[in-house]
Parts: sequence; structure tokens; C-alpha cells
Amino acid sequence: MNERVLALHRVMDQRSLDVIIITQPKHVAYLSGYASEPHERFLGLVLPRAQEPFLLVPALDEEAARAVSSITAIMTHKDTENPYHVLKRAIRSTAKRIGIEKGHLTVARYEQLSAALDSKQWVDINDSLQAMRAIKTTEEIGRLKEAARIVEDVLKDGLKLVKVGITELDIVAELEYRMKKQWGASPSFATTVLSGPNSALPHGVPGLRKIAGGDLLLFDMGVWVDGYASDLTRTFAVGDVGKQFQQVYDIVLEANRLGIAAVCPGTAMKQVDEAARGYIEEQGYGCYFTHRLGHGLGMDVHEYPSINGVNEDLLCEGMVITIEPGIYLKDRGGIRIEDDVLVTQAGAETLTAFTRELTVIG
Amino acid sequence: MNERVLALHRVMDQRSLDVIIITQPKHVAYLSGYASEPHERFLGLVLPRAQEPFLLVPALDEEAARAVSSITAIMTHKDTENPYHVLKRAIRSTAKRIGIEKGHLTVARYEQLSAALDSKQWVDINDSLQAMRAIKTTEEIGRLKEAARIVEDVLKDGLKLVKVGITELDIVAELEYRMKKQWGASPSFATTVLSGPNSALPHGVPGLRKIAGGDLLLFDMGVWVDGYASDLTRTFAVGDVGKQFQQVYDIVLEANRLGIAAVCPGTAMKQVDEAARGYIEEQGYGCYFTHRLGHGLGMDVHEYPSINGVNEDLLCEGMVITIEPGIYLKDRGGIRIEDDVLVTQAGAETLTAFTRELTVIG
Repeated sequence: MNERVLALHRVMDQRSLDVIIITQPKHVAYLSGYASEPHERFLGLVLPRAQEPFLLVPALDEEAARAVSSITAIMTHKDTENPYHVLKRAIRSTAKRIGIEKGHLTVARYEQLSAALDSKQWVDINDSLQAMRAIKTTEEIGRLKEAARIVEDVLKDGLKLVKVGITELDIVAELEYRMKKQWGASPSFATTVLSGPNSALPHGVPGLRKIAGGDLLLFDMGVWVDGYASDLTRTFAVGDVGKQFQQVYDIVLEANRLGIAAVCPGTAMKQVDEAARGYIEEQGYGCYFTHRLGHGLGMDVHEYPSINGVNEDLLCEGMVITIEPGIYLKDRGGIRIEDDVLVTQAGAETLTAFTRELTVIG
Repeated sequence: MNERVLALHRVMDQRSLDVIIITQPKHVAYLSGYASEPHERFLGLVLPRAQEPFLLVPALDEEAARAVSSITAIMTHKDTENPYHVLKRAIRSTAKRIGIEKGHLTVARYEQLSAALDSKQWVDINDSLQAMRAIKTTEEIGRLKEAARIVEDVLKDGLKLVKVGITELDIVAELEYRMKKQWGASPSFATTVLSGPNSALPHGVPGLRKIAGGDLLLFDMGVWVDGYASDLTRTFAVGDVGKQFQQVYDIVLEANRLGIAAVCPGTAMKQVDEAARGYIEEQGYGCYFTHRLGHGLGMDVHEYPSINGVNEDLLCEGMVITIEPGIYLKDRGGIRIEDDVLVTQAGAETLTAFTRELTVIG
């Protein structure tokens, strides 16, 4: 058994579980090496207490699973079978206390599992998996660094083609093409390019708006490298954006710097949020910074921990988080500067190195 | 209130519900016009029985929601608030029986909802939403047709650059670039190009394998058009693929034709599956067709209904499904031919028109 499966076995002991059923595809990948998106079909990694762990996969994925999985016991179910009945038969002992991922498992599946396994005690083991995943190994950090490096190269390359008159979607197309073509990478989330007033929407969607002189131009993008994501935001000036936006930019930049400077093992998440937010509030823009400071980054673009004003959890060495303060002035424009940061013994190592100074383009 | 919200109000009456809480982002979009991906944040459309329906959105998305939502009552929650408490306060009457989407809601959210609303009766309304969504309106069919047309144009255009020596990922990059650049569209799922033995993996992932003479080359791709997906598979011959694969191709093609010919309102889903599968079995390849015949297509690439051998539900006019028989010979190659089909009064209208004859490329 690999290290991660062994760690999960210890969780099983500590929590007195009879079996753990992992259904989140990324957790199946994390524990077995088999990465798959089974859509509505059932995919599970099952760890019974006194039995070899096994994968239960859709029949059509059997070959793909065998090719890569470190869990060698692989069971299958066809589309015409009830996978929960297959699961029930495969677990040889009685399972009274079952560990599941309550943050992933749907109520519908939970009810089907309950009906098949006739268990009354369901324990959420999501926090154990989150805690395992939050501390990155050297190998994982290597992938995150590579993902950061690639997205920066893509952005650098893509900036060359920004000019007045090109649309947001044109830029997105060029960026994602370069990702795939030159780096063999795919976007870790929908590449976001927002111009002018659109940049004031923290979750805006790129469209056919043409870049104009005086626009702010916000890029929020990332790539996957071997299942690990980068997440980078930079905001640029298309020509002269005026005095106020230059000032706002400097405030966001300083908040970004203060947030990163606050990162240290043992520091509470909310202190990091406060370090950046407090400065923005002092400068009178508090109500325009409408979201948390950041989030964990790894096999998910947004994962544990959440860097917000109420999270009292402490940062640990090996965590990777984003620091991404922003100020959004409705109908005018928004500025966000986001970096990926590794918590180190000494404090923080910033994985993203793209210049943070306000750069005029176009 | 719009037609869809009214229909959901009728579901509320029929099922004696006090409130319906919709949390699946696509269902929120379907009912309100506000399409959003809130990630781990709470997004809900709430229909209390004797109160105006309202949206509950993350504070940072308020502007985006107001700009497009046909539901004009919009409440917000900040990252530092418990959205379930905000929800509890916003529902003015007592909610004993609550309709939720059990196929989407996680056990964790369900427990938080339960704790906040103190309700004991939770009713799955997913089937009502599925049934509503399965019957497409003229407008939705228009979008699906446009999505089919675009993916065919992208494929036609992309085929021109296939040549021996180019990698699977190269082709993917070019296809997705064309989607975005020339059609402003994004892929409805990871564009799949599989060559040679890789094509025998129904869920294979494109990689750095170079296209070689004698390869089968399988394309499985789609695009989004205004939130509606296409899903098209075609398999090509790179040069001469030999006699057996030509025969297998003809078997898959005939199975595809038989499947489409079986589509008619009032026919059971399993009969459609059987029409195609029976022929493949007769030809001796039954055990190489390892998945269901097809699935519903709309706001999800895979949605209700499932066209498989045990589904006794009946096809209805206005449904859109895929018909995608395949034969996969391990380590050698696979062939799948997939079309998007609208169930019409007269039988079926195939939305995808790309040639199904074996075409030699490269």
C-alpha cells in the first residue's frame, strides 16, 4: 500500500471506521494514481478495515484503470448493474461505521449507499483528506511550480498580441491555444480576460467587448500540470488609465505584498486576510474588496484552506495558497493581483514571479 | 414569474411542498436566466410557497446576477456569513416539507440546511427538473442545432491539418483554437482525439502519441452555444486501416443507423439501445460494445435520459439524445459514431449531419 492509503488506514483506526468509501474522482486519483471523470457513473476507492483496498470502476474504464492504478484490486460494474449492489457484495465484512466524503457525495448517492449497505453511522472524512492534501509533497510542489511557470510564460506570450480593437474572447482564444500548442497544457479554469468596466465583475465572463484605450485589462488564468493547478491574476493598463486607477493599483499591490508578508507557519488564516484587508480599509476602499483574500491551491483550483476574515485555522508548512486582493469600482473597472504562495519554514515562497508593477500594454 | 418558475410552483403544489431550494447552478440558470459557477460558495434559487421567489447569491456576484436574472428579488451573503442562516431569515413562513435536488446537493450541505431550517421532510425534486429539461423548447433546439453546426464546422476545418507525425494534443490545440477564434465557442467537454490503440479506450485522454499511417483516428468533441452542448464522435482512417477495421466500421455505422431509426415518441429507451446493440451482437462484437447507446443532451453533455438496455422510460417528442454505438478492440483500435438526435412527432431528426461514411484522411 502506498503512503497515502496507509495514512487513510490510520484515519480509519483513529475514527473506528469499518470501511472508507472514497468517491470524489480527485481523491481516487490522489490515493490510487487513477485519474478519471466518471460523470454520472459510480467510481469508488473502497478501503475495508480487514481486506485489501479495491477500486470499483465502470466496466468501460477497466483498462484505463489497470494501466495506472497502484491499487491492483479492480472490480467493475456495467451500466446495467446497480453499482451499490456490486459494492455490497465486494465488502466481505459487516460495515457499521462508514467513512464518506460528505462534501462530495450527493444526497441521492448517500441514500443509495445507505439502502445497499444498511449502515446507520456515516462519518465525514473530508477533513482528513483535506488535511492530507493541504500539505504538499516535494513532488506536488514541483508540479505547482511548473504550473505557475507555464501560466506566466503563456501570459507573457499572450500580452504581445493585445492591441486596441481586439476582443476579450480573441485574447482568450490566443492564450488557450498557446497553452496547448506550446506547452501541451490545458486551462485549470476558464481563462478570464476582462476589459474596462467588465473588470469590475469579480466573476465576469469574457465576451465580444473590444479593448479600448484607457481600459484596465484583467487576466485571471491558470493551467494544469499533472493534475495540479496554477491560478494567476494580473491587471494591466491599456494606455493611460488615469490617476485614480493608478492609486487604486498601488493600494491593491501593497495589500498583496502585506498579505504575502503575513504568511508564516502558525499564523491564523484570518490574520493573513486582515493584513491585506486592513490596509485596503485604511485607504478607504474596504467596501470595494468584496471577497476573501485567497484559497488553497492544488488538485483543485479552490481547495482547503479558505483565507478569509473568520478562519482561525493556522497555516502550516507545505500549504500552497493564493493571495489575491482586489478593488472593484462598479461600471468603471477592477484591479486584482493574485499570487500563488507556498508556506515555508521561513515564511513564504511566492511561486508566481510575474511582475506586479503596473504595466502599460497595447 | 416566467413559465419555468410557474411550472415549478405547480410541482410545489402537487407534492405539497412548503418551499423549493434549487442549488444546482444550471438549474438556477434554467429558472432565472442567471448562469454562474459559485464554486464552494452557496448559490440558491428559493421558491417559498406564499412568497416571491428569490435568489441568494454570494455578495461578490450581486451585480452580475442583477444584470440578467428574471428573478428580481436578490439576496446576498458575504464570505464571512453563514449562507444557511441568511436563508433561514429570508424564508418568512415555516418550511416543513422542502424540495431539494438530491442528485446535486452534497450530504454536507444537506446537513447544514437541515440544521438551519430544522426540517424533517426533504423531497427530491430532481426528477421534476429532469423532466422539464428533457423536453426542449424551440429556442433550446435552436441552440442545440447551432452547437451541432459549429462543432461540425470545427471538425471539418480541423481535419485539414491532420497529417502523419502530428500529435493528438497538437490536433486538440488546433481544434479548440478554431472553436474560440472563428466561432467564439468553447468546448462542452475536453476535446478528445485518440489515435491507433488509444482509440480503443472509450474514456482515453489525448497525449503526445504521433499519428501514424494505418491508425484509426477518433474525434469526440462538442461546443457550448448559449449554455447548450453538442456532442459529436467520428472515427477516421489514416491511410489504409485494413480489412477488419473496415468491416467493424460498417457494423458500427449500421448500428448507428438502426439506433436512430428506432427513435420515436413512445418507444422505450431500452428498445433503442437494443436496436443498435442487437445488431452488433449478431455480428459477433457484442462484448466489444462496453457502454450504453447514448444519453440526453442539453444544458449538460450527459443528462437524463440514459439510453441503455434496462431503461424502460419512453421517449417523448422534444427530447434530444445521443446515439453512439462503438466497438473497441483492445490495443488495436476503437470505432465510435455518435450523433445528436431530436425526437420528433414523425420519429427522429438528426441534428448532426457530418458524413458517417469511412473517410480516409492524412
